[in-house]
Amino acid sequence: MDIATFIGLVVGLGGLAGGFLLEGAHLSSLWGHTAFIIVFGGTIGATIVSYTMEELKKVPFFLKVVFSEKKIDYFTVMETLVETADKARREGLLSLESQLGEIDNEFLSRGLQLVIDGTDPELTRSMLEMEIEAHEKSQKVGVDIFMTAGGFAPTMGIIGTVMGLIHVLSNIAEPDKLAGAIAVAFLATLYGVASANVMWIPFGTKIKVKSGREILLMELVLEGILSIQAGENPRVIREKLMTFLPADAREKGAEQERARMEM
Amino acid sequence: MDIATFIGLVVGLGGLAGGFLLEGAHLSSLWGHTAFIIVFGGTIGATIVSYTMEELKKVPFFLKVVFSEKKIDYFTVMETLVETADKARREGLLSLESQLGEIDNEFLSRGLQLVIDGTDPELTRSMLEMEIEAHEKSQKVGVDIFMTAGGFAPTMGIIGTVMGLIHVLSNIAEPDKLAGAIAVAFLATLYGVASANVMWIPFGTKIKVKSGREILLMELVLEGILSIQAGENPRVIREKLMTFLPADAREKGAEQERARMEM
Amino acid sequence: MDIATFIGLVVGLGGLAGGFLLEGAHLSSLWGHTAFIIVFGGTIGATIVSYTMEELKKVPFFLKVVFSEKKIDYFTVMETLVETADKARREGLLSLESQLGEIDNEFLSRGLQLVIDGTDPELTRSMLEMEIEAHEKSQKVGVDIFMTAGGFAPTMGIIGTVMGLIHVLSNIAEPDKLAGAIAVAFLATLYGVASANVMWIPFGTKIKVKSGREILLMELVLEGILSIQAGENPRVIREKLMTFLPADAREKGAEQERARMEM
Amino acid sequence: MDIATFIGLVVGLGGLAGGFLLEGAHLSSLWGHTAFIIVFGGTIGATIVSYTMEELKKVPFFLKVVFSEKKIDYFTVMETLVETADKARREGLLSLESQLGEIDNEFLSRGLQLVIDGTDPELTRSMLEMEIEAHEKSQKVGVDIFMTAGGFAPTMGIIGTVMGLIHVLSNIAEPDKLAGAIAVAFLATLYGVASANVMWIPFGTKIKVKSGREILLMELVLEGILSIQAGENPRVIREKLMTFLPADAREKGAEQERARMEM
Amino acid sequence: MDIATFIGLVVGLGGLAGGFLLEGAHLSSLWGHTAFIIVFGGTIGATIVSYTMEELKKVPFFLKVVFSEKKIDYFTVMETLVETADKARREGLLSLESQLGEIDNEFLSRGLQLVIDGTDPELTRSMLEMEIEAHEKSQKVGVDIFMTAGGFAPTMGIIGTVMGLIHVLSNIAEPDKLAGAIAVAFLATLYGVASANVMWIPFGTKIKVKSGREILLMELVLEGILSIQAGENPRVIREKLMTFLPADAREKGAEQERARMEM
Repeated sequence: MDIATFIGLVVGLGGLAGGFLLEGAHLSSLWGHTAFIIVFGGTIGATIVSYTMEELKKVPFFLKVVFSEKKIDYFTVMETLVETADKARREGLLSLESQLGEIDNEFLSRGLQLVIDGTDPELTRSMLEMEIEAHEKSQKVGVDIFMTAGGFAPTMGIIGTVMGLIHVLSNIAEPDKLAGAIAVAFLATLYGVASANVMWIPFGTKIKVKSGREILLMELVLEGILSIQAGENPRVIREKLMTFLPADAREKGAEQERARMEM
Repeated sequence: MDIATFIGLVVGLGGLAGGFLLEGAHLSSLWGHTAFIIVFGGTIGATIVSYTMEELKKVPFFLKVVFSEKKIDYFTVMETLVETADKARREGLLSLESQLGEIDNEFLSRGLQLVIDGTDPELTRSMLEMEIEAHEKSQKVGVDIFMTAGGFAPTMGIIGTVMGLIHVLSNIAEPDKLAGAIAVAFLATLYGVASANVMWIPFGTKIKVKSGREILLMELVLEGILSIQAGENPRVIREKLMTFLPADAREKGAEQERARMEM
Repeated sequence: MDIATFIGLVVGLGGLAGGFLLEGAHLSSLWGHTAFIIVFGGTIGATIVSYTMEELKKVPFFLKVVFSEKKIDYFTVMETLVETADKARREGLLSLESQLGEIDNEFLSRGLQLVIDGTDPELTRSMLEMEIEAHEKSQKVGVDIFMTAGGFAPTMGIIGTVMGLIHVLSNIAEPDKLAGAIAVAFLATLYGVASANVMWIPFGTKIKVKSGREILLMELVLEGILSIQAGENPRVIREKLMTFLPADAREKGAEQERARMEM
Repeated sequence: MDIATFIGLVVGLGGLAGGFLLEGAHLSSLWGHTAFIIVFGGTIGATIVSYTMEELKKVPFFLKVVFSEKKIDYFTVMETLVETADKARREGLLSLESQLGEIDNEFLSRGLQLVIDGTDPELTRSMLEMEIEAHEKSQKVGVDIFMTAGGFAPTMGIIGTVMGLIHVLSNIAEPDKLAGAIAVAFLATLYGVASANVMWIPFGTKIKVKSGREILLMELVLEGILSIQAGENPRVIREKLMTFLPADAREKGAEQERARMEM
Repeated sequence: MDIATFIGLVVGLGGLAGGFLLEGAHLSSLWGHTAFIIVFGGTIGATIVSYTMEELKKVPFFLKVVFSEKKIDYFTVMETLVETADKARREGLLSLESQLGEIDNEFLSRGLQLVIDGTDPELTRSMLEMEIEAHEKSQKVGVDIFMTAGGFAPTMGIIGTVMGLIHVLSNIAEPDKLAGAIAVAFLATLYGVASANVMWIPFGTKIKVKSGREILLMELVLEGILSIQAGENPRVIREKLMTFLPADAREKGAEQERARMEM
């Protein structure tokens, strides 16, 4: 469970609903099935037209990304790389074979495999870089789909409201029902703007932010793998990889290093 | 038939029309021939002014791209490239001549022809890259035309509504017809926003997405051709090309390879 | 006469006016001299402030670009380049001097002059590239000016309408004239949105599209000139230049080549 | 205390409140707790959904950046670099060890440490560049968060107003309270637009501007460190670093140099 | 006095005011001190929050750029460079010392000083490029400040109008004053949109356009300085620098050269 997604939805939807209730209104007056059908039918339909089945099939996966937590521990990965570099220097690159099983970061184990296989350094770099790029592109599809939906939703809300007003104005015989009918017409605008700004756009931004963190980890691994292959000094590798770490993880690393040096 | 275009239009237009019908309205009240003429005349006119006949002639072709399905099978193309690399290694580059006839991917056969002709590797790369770039540019014209139309449509809707209101307000003698006339004026806004968001913008996005997939395939072919020309190991080529594959096609490939190795 | 500009304006303005007339309105109710002065005065004024006299002096030239046709025949230019390469190979670079007079593409003849003068290849490339870049920049000024006007026009329309409403609301003594006065106020919005979307923005887009086609031709010429200077095989040059050609011109070229080879 | 943030908020909020009071209104009529809950709940909720806890934890830090002053003295840092270069030339790189304690710019002391350790120049450059890039990225998170909030706020205002209007129109029994209720509904739009334009967007821009200044200082330090490592002439280093200085600091530097040369 | 700024403001403000007067309104009804305080207070306040004092101090300088004329004579600078190249070739680089005093282009004289001092060509290039970049950045600050103000102004107008409407609706006791009060509320929208579109945005665009012209001149000088240092042939330098010239200055140059060659 992604805690920020959860808290954000509670705060956001809670704020909207809470403020409405405090005005003395009933939540039931926020429900309109026709507006719901127009806005969500229109948004989802237009988004489906925009993409192909291959991309759309991944939407459940991207929703999982939004709602589930995937802890990224830069520091541990860096430590693993430094230890591996140390072992590779002392026992040779082939000794890493035994370590492969313990590593649960798929990209890292794939990179080490290339190193163990004696792949040419330039080829190793280009293959891992292509992998990073491919990962980036596949995540961008998710960002794009939700941002597209977030772009369509408010306009579908306007369409719903305009259609509602057209209906109201064409049947103006009962003026005492006019205000209520206009209120219902506005529901579509509400649904459109709210779904875009509480769901689609934040979901798209979330995938982008998470993707950025994963890419950073992959770049750290790439740098580490290439340094191991080049047989660089583990201490220098550590120094280099530290610059990838976010400020808080870096401080933790600095402390540990101090502790180690004092021993 | 592009299934996503079809489903999307059904869901989108169905949602808009369905919601409207459920409000108890008649679809006939959504028809206004003057609004139709204003919005579509204005949108198409402004789009024609923006481009030249050369670009506009391609619109039917781009509409076909939107509505028709063109299956892209990265995996089979990759297999073809690996097999070709294998054959080239065993029997020499000239032996590929016989295989050219079986290949229905035009870009791939053109690339192989260059290799067979003994073209300089640097020239091969630059010619194929220029081809990819030219393809990208020609597709971008389609994206641009539909996006341009999608930008003009809502403003043409506003123009239609403002003209309708001006007409209504200048002839306010019959106040009992006022509401109906205003309803008609709003039809233009409806047409403008709906045509942009259910047709023009999704169509443009679709062409962009499909173009991106074709470009990816071309880049895979380019990488493969250059590797064949360099006489690289088919297994390494396979590894390299796998990084181009989308996640699902890649898993399929990994399974096949495992099966092959167990044999 | 640029046929697309002409057809587009007829279809666009015709659609707007035709729809309005079909509503039973008189075109005369679309005329308001105060709104005209506000919107066009404001738009042109704000655009003039944004640029300097040097840029503004070129506006008539850019209007000519929008309205006049300048046929770009990639194929003929490519043929000229291939023939020139052939002649240069057989009779030497100096023999091209006699051909210079027949060439009416200024950029091509300037490039050939550099080749004949024996300019260093690297310098030839950099000088021709700078020329292309300078051409691109000078065209971009035209795009920018019209796009700037297209950005200002709708806001000037809003200013006109708001000023109209302020006037109406401050003099509300004659309520029976209220509706008519509001209608007049809306004329400014109409002028602003319509001038931006039927004139300024399409004009800017047109210049951009035409500029892109000219740049493509210049890049084709640049590639050809450098190949001639390098003494490359005319057939290879032909192959290379073909990738610059748009799809339709390319097919024409492929047919001709087949015909030639069968001879 | 960042003086510009302080003055800006006083002028901005003072202008809004002052103008309102001069209209003869009471500030109390600008307070609406339901609108406040809807707009701020919605904005903060949607922003939280968009990011992960790691990013959100840094918001207090970024608020401190907005409100606190951190004087950046390019000139003094440049002088320090030139003096250090002088000392390094006369007494050797190792002599810099003693100077490290006096330097309070963390990035500079880290760079000098690398030079003293005899790190390879190429590695020094790449490590310091990665540090700059990491700093830039971490600051960009702050810019993004506030800009995201600034994007959501006005739409939350619209949501609040639409919900308010829906409530009003559904309970139209008491027409004499209608105007007041509509006024309250507009409060949400006011809060949304004002919070975006007086707080979120200016805060985001401020972080971006300050980050740009820090990056410039880091680039100056990077250039200086590399020049010191290369053993360049202090006078040339001074000349080079001067180009990084903003115009006013540069004039101050030029004067000092003249004074020095006259001695 | 920048003639385009002057003409543009006269045409723009004249158009807005003239159209309003022709509607039979009094200019006095366009004045509202509360709207003025709200819009300008809010805009200026939000802009101040967005920047730091260092940037804001330069606003008077940027206003001077908008209103004053600084003739840029590419042709004369090019002639100076060609003559200098000629002299350097005949009399040696040191002979340029005497010429330095006559040159009033600061960037050119600084570049020549570097050449005379015998600075390494690579260092000369990098120092002059850094100078160009620094100039570009410092001008961009001005563009950004005015564009930021242009982004805030219309929203401040909306805030003012919404606050005005809230005040009107809360005090609806005197319905006969309602229309006039609404008119006053709209003044804020008018001020916001007009100040953004007649002042802030055109001012920002103007600085950008002028900055682009200065940068072009600096690039011309850079190219010339480097060619002089490399001891290139003055005629080749002339050819090369001609490509930097705008079309009109280039024709003037071509004519002069023809005249010279006929002599």
